[in-house]
Amino acid sequence: MAEGFTIWLTGLSGAGKSTIAALLERELRERGRRVEVLDGDVVRTHLSKGLGFSREDRDTNILRIGWVCEVLSRNDVIAISAAISPYRETRDQVRARVGRFVEVYVNCSLDTCIDRDVKGLYKRALTGELPSFTGVSDPYEPPLAPEIEVRTELEPVEASAARIVAYLEANGFLQAREDTILATR
Amino acid sequence: MAEGFTIWLTGLSGAGKSTIAALLERELRERGRRVEVLDGDVVRTHLSKGLGFSREDRDTNILRIGWVCEVLSRNDVIAISAAISPYRETRDQVRARVGRFVEVYVNCSLDTCIDRDVKGLYKRALTGELPSFTGVSDPYEPPLAPEIEVRTELEPVEASAARIVAYLEANGFLQAREDTILATR
Repeated sequence: MAEGFTIWLTGLSGAGKSTIAALLERELRERGRRVEVLDGDVVRTHLSKGLGFSREDRDTNILRIGWVCEVLSRNDVIAISAAISPYRETRDQVRARVGRFVEVYVNCSLDTCIDRDVKGLYKRALTGELPSFTGVSDPYEPPLAPEIEVRTELEPVEASAARIVAYLEANGFLQAREDTILATR
Repeated sequence: MAEGFTIWLTGLSGAGKSTIAALLERELRERGRRVEVLDGDVVRTHLSKGLGFSREDRDTNILRIGWVCEVLSRNDVIAISAAISPYRETRDQVRARVGRFVEVYVNCSLDTCIDRDVKGLYKRALTGELPSFTGVSDPYEPPLAPEIEVRTELEPVEASAARIVAYLEANGFLQAREDTILATR
């Protein structure tokens, strides 16, 4: 079988990870696949309550999400992680464990993320009210060789999602299909 | 679809949970099902490192396992939990979240578990070297209305596993089948 794999979205808060994850989820379900989105916030409730944002706690959180992705992937589910996952080495640890792993760099400049500030977090981070905030007071290490990079400030999120699907089709993760929801937009 | 569900084995350390889980896993895979065993020790490594054995930490651990069971079950996987899970209320919380939930009380007297002492833990618990040990210095609350109870000191584990499979067949979780591995022993 081996139908399962992991789509690992990484990028700054506000870059568009959750939105892209939701679009991918819909598209993949439409194709009859089993899909589970592991959103950073949801996971912090169920898996990592009590963990903070130190390097160690972030790594623990990411490795737990990675373990759930691994378990899902080996059971033919497509796991989509939408956590910031700022550290390269930790992402690579997850990659090594999961095996069928597609790292997607959701690239968006810090300035644009700050302008968007969907959750109002950057404002609080910039005043120092929120400490250890990725991109402001905590590092983000961009992937050096992601399977695919999308730039959400240069194209609509639907286009980014469609390019991820095209990558998955071109690389044997998905069967090619004409009637994708995303492509018809 | 709705093929997924959770088999929740609960009982003292040494009662036979892991052995039964392994037998069920083999039988269910043989039937072409997706199966994932969540063993207490494995989960403590990947999901709950750092948690201890206070009531609160035990509950956190069990709720995390429960969440993973929930995620697997809704993706058509049969999740088998083999953790002691000593508290009734916590098991019921997991039951409420998972929905398709089969609680199996793996019943074995404390004396027999102490006699077996497969991992040498009871010896250390009885001398006080291991504190907060379920059955010795920490409570175990047996289920009041489990879907099925098996008594591993009265029958071989293969018979217990076969009775669980029979329950699953009789209650619409599995299709009935003549050529089960377990029944031919």
